[in-house]
Amino acid sequence: MPDYKVYYFNVKALGEPLRFLLSYGNIPFDDIRITREEWPALKPTMPMGQMPVLDVDGKKVHQSIAMSRYLAKQVGLVGADAWEDLQIDTVVDTINDFRLKIGVVSYEPDDEVKEKKLVTLNNEVIPFYLEKLDDIARENNGYLANGKLSWADLYFTAILDYLNYLTKTDLVANHPNLRQVTLNVLDIDQIKAWVEKRPKTEI
Amino acid sequence: MPDYKVYYFNVKALGEPLRFLLSYGNIPFDDIRITREEWPALKPTMPMGQMPVLDVDGKKVHQSIAMSRYLAKQVGLVGADAWEDLQIDTVVDTINDFRLKIGVVSYEPDDEVKEKKLVTLNNEVIPFYLEKLDDIARENNGYLANGKLSWADLYFTAILDYLNYLTKTDLVANHPNLRQVTLNVLDIDQIKAWVEKRPKTEI
Repeated sequence: MPDYKVYYFNVKALGEPLRFLLSYGNIPFDDIRITREEWPALKPTMPMGQMPVLDVDGKKVHQSIAMSRYLAKQVGLVGADAWEDLQIDTVVDTINDFRLKIGVVSYEPDDEVKEKKLVTLNNEVIPFYLEKLDDIARENNGYLANGKLSWADLYFTAILDYLNYLTKTDLVANHPNLRQVTLNVLDIDQIKAWVEKRPKTEI
Repeated sequence: MPDYKVYYFNVKALGEPLRFLLSYGNIPFDDIRITREEWPALKPTMPMGQMPVLDVDGKKVHQSIAMSRYLAKQVGLVGADAWEDLQIDTVVDTINDFRLKIGVVSYEPDDEVKEKKLVTLNNEVIPFYLEKLDDIARENNGYLANGKLSWADLYFTAILDYLNYLTKTDLVANHPNLRQVTLNVLDIDQIKAWVEKRPKTEI
């Protein structure tokens, strides 16, 4: 088995899907958490100067969704064929669009602009995405694709705390099917064990 | 062979990678181009109310990168193994990050904000991404991953006109390795034939 290291800040956010997937597969990994003080010196050593980064036997790779798909192949959480993989990839990219739309408002530096954008985000964008995703979860019986567990479910559940933090809300509270996705993931023994033992962080 | 339809506006942009991939595989497809007048009535019939959409035997799917990966599997432009696919996925998601960073400035509605953001985009973001991507293309001998042709090369070449339009420049003019990627793609017989016969559009 390769030697895996996850490099990220001491937060869940975009690093957590990697940690969920490795934990799901009972794959040991170094969970390396970089402080804000350490980061400037380390940044030039990372591809694209960003994290999360996955180190596989000394080779560093980046892009959280691409890395998650790679790990999903290692732990058996991909689809049974190309069509099933397309359904998984589509919902993951949709979740990523949702995250980016939230992020662009949350990280808006101009307070006045931010207030204006928050209205559209809260009244239109968030309800639209949550309704669509809840529909997908209902049609798929509490999963996000193909009516069965896949890395899309782990991806969503792993980043949900981050999305909730950014939006200052519980996004799945009123969306029972989407909530069921997270319950299904958090009920998996290996995920339970990981959540129990991971460092406690707000984001 | 399934019956393929590509639904998009009469532009290259995010629909063009699908048209490149289908053309590469000599797969016939309906190239359906929706006018701005037709769009409002059609929008509710599209998943997530967006295009491009790919219709495969009557089933509509969305998300341009996910659809491109699916088509790449059909036409033999994926990697030889999971590691090679990771390299392809990573560079495609990096290109997508680049596109989003350009788009968020290009589509900024406030002129004053846009002027300010354009400085950072032109002086920092664009040079950074082009240098990184050119390095990757050099290391991979005129391709974007694994030293050989993959759907990443077709994806980049297909959306480059759109990126050039948004940035009002020729992004690869001073990046010979990245330019070589596009020359390699545009030199493929099936792509040449497609470029020759496709509707002529600026974007």
